[in-house]
Amino acid sequence: MASTFSYTRLFAFAEAVFLGMGCSAADARQATETLLSADLRGVDSHGVARLSGYLRLWEAQRVNATPAIGVVHETPSTAVVDGDAGLGLVVGPHAMRLAIEKAQQVGTGWVAVRNSNHYGIAGYHAMLGLPHDMIGISLTNASPLVAPTHSLERLLGTNPISVAIPAGEQPPFVLDMATTTAAQGKMEILERKGLPAPAGWIQDRDGNSSSNPTETRNGGALIPLGGETGSHKGYGLGATVDILSAVLSGANYGPWVPPFVAFLQPPANPVGQGIGHFFGAMRVDAFRPAAEFKAHMDNWIQTFRQAKAVPDKQVLIPGDPERLMTEQRLLHGIPLLQKVVDDLQQVGAKFGLTL
Amino acid sequence: MASTFSYTRLFAFAEAVFLGMGCSAADARQATETLLSADLRGVDSHGVARLSGYLRLWEAQRVNATPAIGVVHETPSTAVVDGDAGLGLVVGPHAMRLAIEKAQQVGTGWVAVRNSNHYGIAGYHAMLGLPHDMIGISLTNASPLVAPTHSLERLLGTNPISVAIPAGEQPPFVLDMATTTAAQGKMEILERKGLPAPAGWIQDRDGNSSSNPTETRNGGALIPLGGETGSHKGYGLGATVDILSAVLSGANYGPWVPPFVAFLQPPANPVGQGIGHFFGAMRVDAFRPAAEFKAHMDNWIQTFRQAKAVPDKQVLIPGDPERLMTEQRLLHGIPLLQKVVDDLQQVGAKFGLTL
Repeated sequence: MASTFSYTRLFAFAEAVFLGMGCSAADARQATETLLSADLRGVDSHGVARLSGYLRLWEAQRVNATPAIGVVHETPSTAVVDGDAGLGLVVGPHAMRLAIEKAQQVGTGWVAVRNSNHYGIAGYHAMLGLPHDMIGISLTNASPLVAPTHSLERLLGTNPISVAIPAGEQPPFVLDMATTTAAQGKMEILERKGLPAPAGWIQDRDGNSSSNPTETRNGGALIPLGGETGSHKGYGLGATVDILSAVLSGANYGPWVPPFVAFLQPPANPVGQGIGHFFGAMRVDAFRPAAEFKAHMDNWIQTFRQAKAVPDKQVLIPGDPERLMTEQRLLHGIPLLQKVVDDLQQVGAKFGLTL
Repeated sequence: MASTFSYTRLFAFAEAVFLGMGCSAADARQATETLLSADLRGVDSHGVARLSGYLRLWEAQRVNATPAIGVVHETPSTAVVDGDAGLGLVVGPHAMRLAIEKAQQVGTGWVAVRNSNHYGIAGYHAMLGLPHDMIGISLTNASPLVAPTHSLERLLGTNPISVAIPAGEQPPFVLDMATTTAAQGKMEILERKGLPAPAGWIQDRDGNSSSNPTETRNGGALIPLGGETGSHKGYGLGATVDILSAVLSGANYGPWVPPFVAFLQPPANPVGQGIGHFFGAMRVDAFRPAAEFKAHMDNWIQTFRQAKAVPDKQVLIPGDPERLMTEQRLLHGIPLLQKVVDDLQQVGAKFGLTL
């Protein structure tokens, strides 16, 4: 059962909640925009359904609503940002904008972030470069749910990679992917529908491929992208995301990444501060004239989209499904499961708000 | 049947062949070092076995042995390099060294390359940053053998991603992976052994998963990393590599990438020049003190390597198998199939050389 809410109504509600937590007006607006970009793009697991999760982290004093976000170290093309335990939804765009400023000066900008929290969908941050004719890159580490190849231990998050590339007449290319074959959200959907997990998605506590989508609750783990014959590649990608996000910035990495859920304590003896992100911005015209680049991107996109395909299918460009979803949901609203609506009503009640 | 040759003997032979093609002494040495790094690391498909392939491209005047490699455009942190149709084995390190110089100046350096040829293994170039305490990144596009998700057409190469990250006491982290589940070289090994391809590696001309490792000769295609349930992710990664390597630099992209084999003509109406690469170098101390970074990398590596594993297996760090192989082959020599030895003898005969 689902009810549908307009984007503006959800926006006003979530913004009021962030204001209720004590965020500044600008931060509340930013946090809301970042969070709801997930609902618009159809990544329902990372959107407003997580508002109560962020609130509980704030109640547990693990999120600082009024962070003093600062630069720890910088060079002309790099910086390390300390998020002061702020919402990743706010710290992320702050750091990405710094990367964009650096790119305006010296061609590219690269910002590693420590002492942050979960930042919503990776793609939102990468796409901030697009209006500036920049290629945007966004990586983050996350709570450990994934076992490296051969491992029985969960040492990595679903550590996403997003790359947003501007085009001319065509819509931009926006890759936004977990480095597992399926993200945890997909397991939750299978569980709700009572369906088995396909081979190569999840393993049990003994390291055998399992069809039980809730296996992570029994000591199992998600399997890196590539599954039974190629998981060493997904593991290598997820590991790279972890190192760039956290070893480079001074955040927690691997099994030390603090959990998103407030009822689990962060590991003792942390190796860094909070969770880590990594952002990049590259000015297209630092390589070739922007108009030339965009004309070739249009040609690239059209060539791929028009490729001969299997019956009843077509070749999609990364970002196509999410863009169509955004158009639909802005027009027709965002459907929320009753469970999510109830949860949001409880959140609202704490601040005298109704959804 | 295989004979074994010392690294120094193969080096002297290949260097003499490159000199015979007219390469300068420095270029011949560099081309040989790049090429043989594949044999040392156990990537036999990309090593000295390809020497005759490079020679045939030179004979067909598609490789320029005396290129004037030049910078087309640059900013403090970026450049586009024109390889003047030189050997990728030489153009690649030239461009990566420029990225390193830029990183020394402004923290990071990013170089896109056009008008090049195949550059050997991606990992060689990425690893050039390691002695400078830099993270190295190396990408290249390649002849189209891979079908995007749902496509019947081959539009991408196996487009590898390599990331090399320095550590302290521990050996470096070196990821070097094709963005397909299995590289074309794996198919050739299956064919030689008469073994079937696992599900999700290769598709037939109608887009169905096939167990025939030679399916690409019948109009089939390799499947991107992720296989039956996740190939859209490998497609997205391979597409990103293609765009950064070629749309950004002005090289050929997608179906226009010229084939490695001299008996196939490059596509008519090219959209750029030659094939493209993309290199990055990031100074570790542009983010945090190098000693601090390396101590945490050591901890990261040890934590992962010591993880509890399935019986008789252990968790490996990307680069471990290739490093062990290098140690072995430097000590005990490099085994070459008789077919490869015969091929090399024919190459040598053209220049009065014997292997």
